[in-house]
Amino acid sequence: MIAPFAIPERPVAAAIAASERVDEDRLWQRLMDMSAHGAIENDGVNRQALSEADIEARAHLRSLGADAGLTASVDAIGNLFLRLSGKRAEAAPVLSGSHLDSQPTGGRFDGVYGVLAALEAVEAMREAGIEPERPVEIVAWTNEEGSRFAPGMMGSTVFAGARDLDSMLAVRDENGVSVAEALATVRASEPDLPQRDGADRPAAFIEAHIEQGPVLEAKGRTVGVVQGIEGKRVFRVTVTGELGHPGTVPQAQRRDAVIAATAMVTAIGDAVTANDERAKFAVGMFTVEPNAPSVIPAEVRFSIDLRHSDAAALVRLGDRIPALCEDNRRGCDVVVRELSHDPPLVFPKPMQSLIRTASAAVGIPSLDIFSGAGHDARHLHYHCPTGMIFVPSRGGISHSVEEWSDPEHLAAGARVLAAVLVSLATR
Amino acid sequence: MIAPFAIPERPVAAAIAASERVDEDRLWQRLMDMSAHGAIENDGVNRQALSEADIEARAHLRSLGADAGLTASVDAIGNLFLRLSGKRAEAAPVLSGSHLDSQPTGGRFDGVYGVLAALEAVEAMREAGIEPERPVEIVAWTNEEGSRFAPGMMGSTVFAGARDLDSMLAVRDENGVSVAEALATVRASEPDLPQRDGADRPAAFIEAHIEQGPVLEAKGRTVGVVQGIEGKRVFRVTVTGELGHPGTVPQAQRRDAVIAATAMVTAIGDAVTANDERAKFAVGMFTVEPNAPSVIPAEVRFSIDLRHSDAAALVRLGDRIPALCEDNRRGCDVVVRELSHDPPLVFPKPMQSLIRTASAAVGIPSLDIFSGAGHDARHLHYHCPTGMIFVPSRGGISHSVEEWSDPEHLAAGARVLAAVLVSLATR
Repeated sequence: MIAPFAIPERPVAAAIAASERVDEDRLWQRLMDMSAHGAIENDGVNRQALSEADIEARAHLRSLGADAGLTASVDAIGNLFLRLSGKRAEAAPVLSGSHLDSQPTGGRFDGVYGVLAALEAVEAMREAGIEPERPVEIVAWTNEEGSRFAPGMMGSTVFAGARDLDSMLAVRDENGVSVAEALATVRASEPDLPQRDGADRPAAFIEAHIEQGPVLEAKGRTVGVVQGIEGKRVFRVTVTGELGHPGTVPQAQRRDAVIAATAMVTAIGDAVTANDERAKFAVGMFTVEPNAPSVIPAEVRFSIDLRHSDAAALVRLGDRIPALCEDNRRGCDVVVRELSHDPPLVFPKPMQSLIRTASAAVGIPSLDIFSGAGHDARHLHYHCPTGMIFVPSRGGISHSVEEWSDPEHLAAGARVLAAVLVSLATR
Repeated sequence: MIAPFAIPERPVAAAIAASERVDEDRLWQRLMDMSAHGAIENDGVNRQALSEADIEARAHLRSLGADAGLTASVDAIGNLFLRLSGKRAEAAPVLSGSHLDSQPTGGRFDGVYGVLAALEAVEAMREAGIEPERPVEIVAWTNEEGSRFAPGMMGSTVFAGARDLDSMLAVRDENGVSVAEALATVRASEPDLPQRDGADRPAAFIEAHIEQGPVLEAKGRTVGVVQGIEGKRVFRVTVTGELGHPGTVPQAQRRDAVIAATAMVTAIGDAVTANDERAKFAVGMFTVEPNAPSVIPAEVRFSIDLRHSDAAALVRLGDRIPALCEDNRRGCDVVVRELSHDPPLVFPKPMQSLIRTASAAVGIPSLDIFSGAGHDARHLHYHCPTGMIFVPSRGGISHSVEEWSDPEHLAAGARVLAAVLVSLATR
């Protein structure tokens, strides 16, 4: 299904000229201006999908696009596009962007950075006097976060054909408002914005994003060449023991759900992370019934979040979980249910190579890195050749008002993005 | 402080005659009748201290006492006494009983059995034509359970001088009603009941009670000779880690409070229960923040309930807990607080011996057993020579509507109690 498009593995000569026109102050100022839409205290942002704050941010983005001479359009799920035409206007476009929506207590960079970095890259390209062969499109995907309307990554999945438009339009928020209704309000605010019919399959998609983890900062690298997105398996474990009096029931006769469940967590954690620094294991939820200090607990329900960048390792480690629970049930009953299994994906090697060589060409130290978080690029990957560029997150913090990335690093990511877009669009 | 009183280590001859007059059907019928006061569905009882149901039960008990020719009185904390005088009316009485109050979803035997078994024993003694040397008193202690008014064992602690009357009268329930106010309502319902001045220090106290554990049933013994009450140490552990995204934070950089806390629980449990079948360990409470499947957890608070019948072992095992937490903190911070340390107690050997030989004399198979639960006898122990008699609990279940003891076993406990009371009261 991937469109026949030869990805250049090294940047073209014009790419460097474009990257040099990236304006750190302009990009930073736009990020700060955009953070006014949905601003909350302590520099945070609450800009949930299709909200009033999101409407403001979309209008702001369209205004910036109009100033830059870009052509705006929207699709049926509300994805917003700004198009720079190319010498061959009918050619499949090169697409770049991310999302404008945020978590309820989010920061100023997650998502919006990828949109404004794409705009910065396109402006830099034009200021360098480059007219691309193919159109270049900036995209703001609808509802990546999924905070107001679940699931997230709604716009990118509909665009890529991974989910059905009508079923997504029917999703309702906790106040009973549907996506269709919220989208009608958004569209009423932008009556002059034309809606496109079908989706053009892009020649390529590239997404710039903050890392949301601590690796680039720890390694002192400015740009992450994202190799792919880790696979993830999610489990729920229910351990059933027997209520009792902690004074009167002899230890050997107990069926203590906490004793069993803690032994399971320890055994699984030790087994899956031993000698494998790529494995990630978390038990975010651990709920005890009746949870009283003077009662032997009758039931524990806990979650398992297991991630790995290697598909075979993810299968092998996850498949050990039921037996490790069984081995540590200590007289209790245990039921293990797997809720989801998303295999890891690896972006096309030429796309990784282009980002890596573009970084080197513009003098920015890069690091090959896997994404542990999901992104719109996960779904575009199955639709067209896709890549991602990461920039450092201070302290690895995201989904928080404390989210921070240095202006210099944000500009460096945009420089690499500009070099990559020029290289892709001049083919 | 223990009154000079030589406990006979074997039952007197008249003891057997008294035990033979214990009437299984009468005792059972009285237990069933009493369970009407505060009856809840599925044969349960909700008869919290100083409630309307408790007032009904007290009136019922006084009526039974009056029929048996016993003299009723009450003390300042509401403990209810029924007295059979002896040849030497001024001698220190032999005291026996337990409590009438129940847990909110309690059963038909916990507490009330010890009161009605004492009444049955006294009636059997009289029906056997025995006039004791000393007075024999039946007691119903106020508020053993502590469900409505905390702490529990209120009546027995005040009687034994372990707690101050005024501070207990000032305790309020969750509706703001004080013990003094609730007691005034109770006393208004029994205006003809005389209040005694000070407390007579008894010559001895003996409490019959359901085991609340599964040991007698499992070993096929009908009566437990209670050697003492286990010691108990209660801890609260707080583990503080760092919130994070389970996809983006590398495993080695995490401070995951659940990974640390589960390792602590497993290490402590394995350490304290290894090669020591008398040690009891439970973690009834384990609370995670924020307890979301997709968030690396930032904090866990858990409880530790550690019990042992040996004082030195309880000290040694409990003292290992802070180091075991420290050794397993896995990058998190940990704070261990000890909330209480009640050392084990051992009832006087002659009292144990008397119960054991009385059981043998009346042909009832007994077992020496420690009590893991607390009882009013814990406090009487420091006031006068004290002992306890257990009868089996089906499935070890108590504090539940499913609480059950066989009529035959309940009568057997009363037979042993009658033999013991006669032996103590004819000294």
